[in-house]
Amino acid sequence: MPKQVDHRERREAIARALWRVVDLRGVQHLSLREIAREAGISHGQLQHYFASRQALLTFAMDFAAEQTTQRISRSLEQLGDPPHPRDVLRLTLTEMLPLHADARATSRMNAAYVLEALHDEEVLARTRDAMAKGRAQMEGLIRRAIADGHIDSTRDPATETDLLLALTGFATLIELRVIDPQDVLKAVDQHLDRLFDQ
Amino acid sequence: MPKQVDHRERREAIARALWRVVDLRGVQHLSLREIAREAGISHGQLQHYFASRQALLTFAMDFAAEQTTQRISRSLEQLGDPPHPRDVLRLTLTEMLPLHADARATSRMNAAYVLEALHDEEVLARTRDAMAKGRAQMEGLIRRAIADGHIDSTRDPATETDLLLALTGFATLIELRVIDPQDVLKAVDQHLDRLFDQ
Repeated sequence: MPKQVDHRERREAIARALWRVVDLRGVQHLSLREIAREAGISHGQLQHYFASRQALLTFAMDFAAEQTTQRISRSLEQLGDPPHPRDVLRLTLTEMLPLHADARATSRMNAAYVLEALHDEEVLARTRDAMAKGRAQMEGLIRRAIADGHIDSTRDPATETDLLLALTGFATLIELRVIDPQDVLKAVDQHLDRLFDQ
Repeated sequence: MPKQVDHRERREAIARALWRVVDLRGVQHLSLREIAREAGISHGQLQHYFASRQALLTFAMDFAAEQTTQRISRSLEQLGDPPHPRDVLRLTLTEMLPLHADARATSRMNAAYVLEALHDEEVLARTRDAMAKGRAQMEGLIRRAIADGHIDSTRDPATETDLLLALTGFATLIELRVIDPQDVLKAVDQHLDRLFDQ
């Protein structure tokens, strides 16, 4: 196996170990030592792949975002060509919620990463940029849907984007079992039904 | 000072020290030792008031919820008698968002507590009960608003409650500076305008 590929694969395996620690035991255990133990390698070996806790967290977040994008792309392929903007928004939003195991791991890691970002300017800048980019893509989609007559032209694309993104607040309500997943999907559909004319 | 009052005051002072640690330094530092240092007392003294990390966290959360309720009650008094249900919902929702220092501390502590709840059945049960109670109060308010003709009778009170609660997702977007506070308030008002007929 080429050395570059091997290096990347090992980094991904370590990132998956980090997800498992966050998912199964909580952000309180997010130390390099605990992650090395979960990955079945020594603390020294882990440091060979990641110089710092922050470097590992950042890689794990990027890797998770990549996996989420791939999941969404695979599902989009089954939605028709071109897919209806309502379906694209529904899929994007629901994949950000902890409604299945992979999305749950990503959602929990995100929550941990957000708390980390509040006290680390570099992590904050990276997280903010990534979310702002995602927000801009969603707003672009809504603007096109308005131009194509799917959404009423009196709607403000920026405000509609903000309201959709805010619905990621369902993540906590699902995790704490305050709202059932089926009721969450019903509410999301209700919101989208009111947004789209056709 | 009566001993009981003094005991309560000291527990509140320790809870405030916990808030400061979460708010200023992050959930990673949420150890009894770190909180004792912030409160200016010894680890032993802290253990006299709280037997465990969990007991302290639970007290701090209850105390924060109490403070939030008092803040909302004081603001409600200025809204007319009886206040319009739209104003009550707007106030309740915006007080849950990190739009001023006190609400920010509570919001960050909540986020930390939620992550703790995912790996502690007792904390989960308590958090879930408290949130379910808050959700039921909000749904009651919406049902009355429908009965009083403020909200169209075709609206489903459960779904409308879920959508309102999901908007607490703005907390993360405000913290990461992805959406400005003024745009959040604009979106919340937009959502409420569509919910209320009058």
